[in-house]
Amino acid sequence: MPMKPKRPGEISIALPPATDAGLMFIGRIRTPWPTPADCPKNSAARAEVEATIDLDARFADGLRGLDLYSHAVVLYWLDRSARDLIVQAPGHLAGPRGVFALRSPVRPNPIGLSVVEVLRVEGKRVVIRRIDCCDGTPVIDIKPYLASIDAVPEARKP
Amino acid sequence: MPMKPKRPGEISIALPPATDAGLMFIGRIRTPWPTPADCPKNSAARAEVEATIDLDARFADGLRGLDLYSHAVVLYWLDRSARDLIVQAPGHLAGPRGVFALRSPVRPNPIGLSVVEVLRVEGKRVVIRRIDCCDGTPVIDIKPYLASIDAVPEARKP
Repeated sequence: MPMKPKRPGEISIALPPATDAGLMFIGRIRTPWPTPADCPKNSAARAEVEATIDLDARFADGLRGLDLYSHAVVLYWLDRSARDLIVQAPGHLAGPRGVFALRSPVRPNPIGLSVVEVLRVEGKRVVIRRIDCCDGTPVIDIKPYLASIDAVPEARKP
Repeated sequence: MPMKPKRPGEISIALPPATDAGLMFIGRIRTPWPTPADCPKNSAARAEVEATIDLDARFADGLRGLDLYSHAVVLYWLDRSARDLIVQAPGHLAGPRGVFALRSPVRPNPIGLSVVEVLRVEGKRVVIRRIDCCDGTPVIDIKPYLASIDAVPEARKP
């Protein structure tokens, strides 16, 4: 799904003719938001709502011990996103910016990343909070969150 | 590359017959460590050494503005890893644990995640610190680190 640059300064590129590795969808994320337009725009709204990661049965044993952690990193595949818009001009910024300096879902590999709160594990499902993706989004990985390496509260942004 | 369970309690699964989505390698990570055995085991050693993300030229414009951030999340593809060991018994733990409660490189989608310090951007290269992967590891995404959503210093682990 190539995407024509729409705003001044945006740049789309020719993507490589083939991909290099294959991802398996390990399950789906269940949220109350059917389409991108329904998803919460701010983290306060997102923080209150429970969502569920529903793994395919074959991967269920992989959840053993996840409930020992209060938080996890969830990686998911934004399968409705274009991949070729390398410079983007989102409305909330003063000018165009490179995709690797943005958290936009449109990126060469449309992987979404959320640090979520793990409420409980129930069989092949994980009940979480703090995610803002659409209902049915494919999950590709879950990792335990380790504050010692993942938390940089003093990180600077513009 | 299936992997026979080696330690008591480890479980390998039959993987799905096909993959669901394709990843593009956008560049390579250059580090001083040629093989997994050479990689630093602790974050203190890792924190001192500079590494470089060397993007393919077509993706270079995507780096515009990354230097405005002090830290980034780097996602990479651990292409030497088995994918079928769903319960693992690493030596440093008392018993077996599910892959989604481990940061092991062996996982259904072998994506590595590191929060790195961005030292500078030079054309199509980013000089970073705080990564421990092997030299030549394929990069799949770079995201700016946002303390407001990515930093959870109070996160609990076992």
